[in-house]
Amino acid sequence: MVKRRPIIGTVFAYFEFMHQPFEVVVLGTASATPTRDRNPSSHYVRLGNNHILIDCGEGTQNQLLKYGLKMHKIRTILITHLHGDHYFGLPGLLFSMALNNRQEPITLIGPSDLKKFIEDILAHGNGRFTYEINFISTENRENGVILDGGDFQVHTVNLQHRIPCTGFVLEEVKVGRNHRGNYRKYAYISDTIYDESIVPFIENADLLYHEATFLHDRLDRAEQTFHTTALQAGNIASMANAKKLLIGHFSSRYTDLEPLRDEAGSQFESVELAVEGQVFELIPELTKVGQN
Amino acid sequence: MVKRRPIIGTVFAYFEFMHQPFEVVVLGTASATPTRDRNPSSHYVRLGNNHILIDCGEGTQNQLLKYGLKMHKIRTILITHLHGDHYFGLPGLLFSMALNNRQEPITLIGPSDLKKFIEDILAHGNGRFTYEINFISTENRENGVILDGGDFQVHTVNLQHRIPCTGFVLEEVKVGRNHRGNYRKYAYISDTIYDESIVPFIENADLLYHEATFLHDRLDRAEQTFHTTALQAGNIASMANAKKLLIGHFSSRYTDLEPLRDEAGSQFESVELAVEGQVFELIPELTKVGQN
Repeated sequence: MVKRRPIIGTVFAYFEFMHQPFEVVVLGTASATPTRDRNPSSHYVRLGNNHILIDCGEGTQNQLLKYGLKMHKIRTILITHLHGDHYFGLPGLLFSMALNNRQEPITLIGPSDLKKFIEDILAHGNGRFTYEINFISTENRENGVILDGGDFQVHTVNLQHRIPCTGFVLEEVKVGRNHRGNYRKYAYISDTIYDESIVPFIENADLLYHEATFLHDRLDRAEQTFHTTALQAGNIASMANAKKLLIGHFSSRYTDLEPLRDEAGSQFESVELAVEGQVFELIPELTKVGQN
Repeated sequence: MVKRRPIIGTVFAYFEFMHQPFEVVVLGTASATPTRDRNPSSHYVRLGNNHILIDCGEGTQNQLLKYGLKMHKIRTILITHLHGDHYFGLPGLLFSMALNNRQEPITLIGPSDLKKFIEDILAHGNGRFTYEINFISTENRENGVILDGGDFQVHTVNLQHRIPCTGFVLEEVKVGRNHRGNYRKYAYISDTIYDESIVPFIENADLLYHEATFLHDRLDRAEQTFHTTALQAGNIASMANAKKLLIGHFSSRYTDLEPLRDEAGSQFESVELAVEGQVFELIPELTKVGQN
């Protein structure tokens, strides 16, 4: 429906209608150890001109190559925690950026030891980067905005895992006539034990990625390792009133993933399995699925 | 030709004829940064029941999976130096071994900082391995035997690179009637500037792997970065009287590798290009080529 507006209003209406792209590309879906078909965790997010990497398991730079994503466009990297399947691909990616003579700074957000890890690797190899890394620690923070990128914000959500771990919510920010509002919202929750206290921070997400390492018949193992079952992930999506739930971080014990989808689906109607190379587009009314 | 021997001699002759397998599987062929087709450095060596990994670039555990090689069989890992393309796959491999509940110790040979690197990663993730790592430093050593595995030996060859770097020679050791001799020999030389002083230590190798990062028209760049050209690698193979030269560690600037083979071939007759998944079998008279 088109409303009549004065000229200036029409211009804003035009920009409001022409949504900038907000896409999530799944690069890794395995927990702990890679399988023949699944790589460790990584998601690539494009929000307008902002290209953001969340987690960077081993082989992420190969996955970027495979799916035609340009590493030089990435300006922001978010690391949830320092278990290897979430960051062992980071050194290779950062060095490849330097070999490509990158000049533009990177904002790197993660646990404090991540900064030391990168510095030590540079020292071991007597190397240096061609660009600056602006590091922001996720530790000892209340949930809230950790990065304001102008037209997007990154919020932290503290998670309950075996070591300090932080989920991230990426929100589009739109500036219009006399208002600045948050629009589309992507929540990335990995790794965590089932924890309802996160619900207020991920409410109404257009797309909620939640780890679902195990089926619910292995609840004991999930609790022991501070992970979530598919059934529990469905519960969280339902409580959070998400538009769509994307599950991933699958244990290597599962080759057929449909039972995980079915189990989450028993609690929440719109469930997708994370598949590498798949693109999820966040549009205001609907989350479409495509293939990269 | 079969000679008549007394019974006991016939038994030994039988074992001498039935050579245990000595195979090299190429897992990575890229220098510095992976390409769509090439992974960073790693070679897998099988010598009888001994399974040895040399270098471990990012993605090596995926390459092992891809080519059907079992990580649990690896007992010895040799790392030449601490540039990322030679060791960024090591943490992931060691953690995957622990996740598989490995109990058998690993012998890890490399620069001193490698030990610290592994210990720091364990500390960051509050983790531990299920098995012991016996670490042997390659630094501040004369060329010679660094590991005596009974039926094989690992020798070090100091190389000239931008940081401390060590080549390795793997020799089969055979124990027979009143003698113990070295037989088949595999030399792995990466990364180094052209350096004739290594020749006495790699002489008569059945298979010589030598880096050939650039074509000779980029000799300036090779010298600046302490690398070797394909022509120079051919020279080294010729001086060392190798049976076969295998070149690898190719710069990402080359998509067609035949010019590198041709250039090395102008100096030495038997040159192979390293191709991932290719198997080289060292037999006393001949080095055969197969595909894994």
